[in-house]
Amino acid sequence: MQRLPILACAVLLGACISVPFEPAARRPDWAIAIHGGAGTIPRTTPAEEAEAYRSSLAAALRLGAGRLEAGARALDVAEEVVRLLEDDPLFNAGKGAVFTASGEHELDASIMDGETLSCGAVTGVKTVRHPISLARAVMERTPHVLLAGEGAEALADEAGLERVENSWFSTPPRRLQLERALEQRRAEQGGGTVGAGVLDRHGHLAAATSTGGMTAKRRGRVGDTPLIGAGNFADDRTCAVSGTGTGEQFIRHGVARAISDRMELSGRSARAAAEETVFGRLQAGDGGVIVVSHRGEIALVYNSEGMFRGAADANGRFEVAIWED
Amino acid sequence: MQRLPILACAVLLGACISVPFEPAARRPDWAIAIHGGAGTIPRTTPAEEAEAYRSSLAAALRLGAGRLEAGARALDVAEEVVRLLEDDPLFNAGKGAVFTASGEHELDASIMDGETLSCGAVTGVKTVRHPISLARAVMERTPHVLLAGEGAEALADEAGLERVENSWFSTPPRRLQLERALEQRRAEQGGGTVGAGVLDRHGHLAAATSTGGMTAKRRGRVGDTPLIGAGNFADDRTCAVSGTGTGEQFIRHGVARAISDRMELSGRSARAAAEETVFGRLQAGDGGVIVVSHRGEIALVYNSEGMFRGAADANGRFEVAIWED
Repeated sequence: MQRLPILACAVLLGACISVPFEPAARRPDWAIAIHGGAGTIPRTTPAEEAEAYRSSLAAALRLGAGRLEAGARALDVAEEVVRLLEDDPLFNAGKGAVFTASGEHELDASIMDGETLSCGAVTGVKTVRHPISLARAVMERTPHVLLAGEGAEALADEAGLERVENSWFSTPPRRLQLERALEQRRAEQGGGTVGAGVLDRHGHLAAATSTGGMTAKRRGRVGDTPLIGAGNFADDRTCAVSGTGTGEQFIRHGVARAISDRMELSGRSARAAAEETVFGRLQAGDGGVIVVSHRGEIALVYNSEGMFRGAADANGRFEVAIWED
Repeated sequence: MQRLPILACAVLLGACISVPFEPAARRPDWAIAIHGGAGTIPRTTPAEEAEAYRSSLAAALRLGAGRLEAGARALDVAEEVVRLLEDDPLFNAGKGAVFTASGEHELDASIMDGETLSCGAVTGVKTVRHPISLARAVMERTPHVLLAGEGAEALADEAGLERVENSWFSTPPRRLQLERALEQRRAEQGGGTVGAGVLDRHGHLAAATSTGGMTAKRRGRVGDTPLIGAGNFADDRTCAVSGTGTGEQFIRHGVARAISDRMELSGRSARAAAEETVFGRLQAGDGGVIVVSHRGEIALVYNSEGMFRGAADANGRFEVAIWED
């Protein structure tokens, strides 16, 4: 009700002046946000270890920023950035993925094109080096959205994607984590799920997310990462979202779509929509999201101790962070 | 704006009178909606065949209505009704499921409790007679929401659920459909995915959905049925939804959650929310949904030639239908 007089003024003044309710920020020509997981990231992490994470995030962000500056498509950039993070052993995706309870790796990934709402995802992948590219193959080469297990792997050969032994994904720190998890059910440590949300120069959004899932997960467990609308979503009308955290909670609350729906149906900003969802629906410690809106607004919102994250845009923003610092 | 004077009247008159904007319908003490699939259901279907479908739907509806009248919980009723439909060879769930391209059956199911938002789902199940009960076991016996393939089946023994040979699900009409699909990619025929949305006497909602997927589907293909927020959703604040149709479209548009979000964020009725989503987002022929709201409103909305469906409530409603008739 209080807004009515202001609204009336705005309508009366019409095309003559604009009434900025928020500080005017120039819409960037492109924008990108990335993450490398959220969760228990102790503040006591040794400085050189934290620096290694920052360095990896910055490398991924530089790759994306450079490609976007050159006019690359959001969908391509999202895939390329996530491929780089999949190859980075620090994060729980591709090389460096966590172990299942039975000592294997089962990888999940999804990708979505905000222009067409085309999307693809895979779950339970064991031998494909870049699950994010297999997700893209599902999107482009099949009438389906989500393929599981061997059915997904069969597509890798058709798409000419690199296959590796399952043990190729193994790293000593992740094996130690499995041993600890089986002994004491200790919390996850180190880098987690990776993801990218991208707005390109052409006004299109894309989101890509890739993960090894939970340490010591039950065989066949599917988390939020391959589920469109849970851990990953992009729609040119609203935003691109990639999530990381307790997958079951992200599925239950349909986090990625809930953020998009709050922007579309309630007119929320990316930040407000993400905060309502992450603080109002998820439980403390569940994780976080990165959101890039169709106007280039970036929101990095989490309710855990930290989130490996980065943001860059055409207006010169370039930052990586782990905690509130 | 036009509502302001009316609103002012309503506020002034306060507790004295109510101002019904819509025809007043007494909130039923319980309500249930079911479906047995949507799609190409020719109007030329022989009368006795259509009658068989109606009879099966009525039996499921009677089971649910009787249990609800007696005070049973929504979650239990949703599961029991879907179990009955899984055993019915007319529908594409459990016995009578369609064949995959390789001549097997891979079943998906999910269930959600609107009171707690607890949910469970399975995909790629080959040997469990009642996939909906396995979905419930995922919900109640694991920290996970979705289990795939052998990982899901392993839980069946822990939960004491009946196992059957994969060929137990086979029926001659479905084998004929597979042969036709492999030859000519003919459209699906006969009953489809099954589902139930339930409001119980205690004010709680639940949704359950079960399917054999698409005829001649690719191995490992996961549709919308096991994906919370796509083909199944329940939240006591809004509604219970079960969907049926082109799964990939239901995933892309997150149909079940989109309906709930429209009720929650835009104040839509169940019918308006379902119509906006089914007619505004899906493409003609994609399928439909059944929705039961927290006030007992039932919406049965589809954009295909027909939908096998039924609705009953404590106010005496009891109906089954296939087309607009």
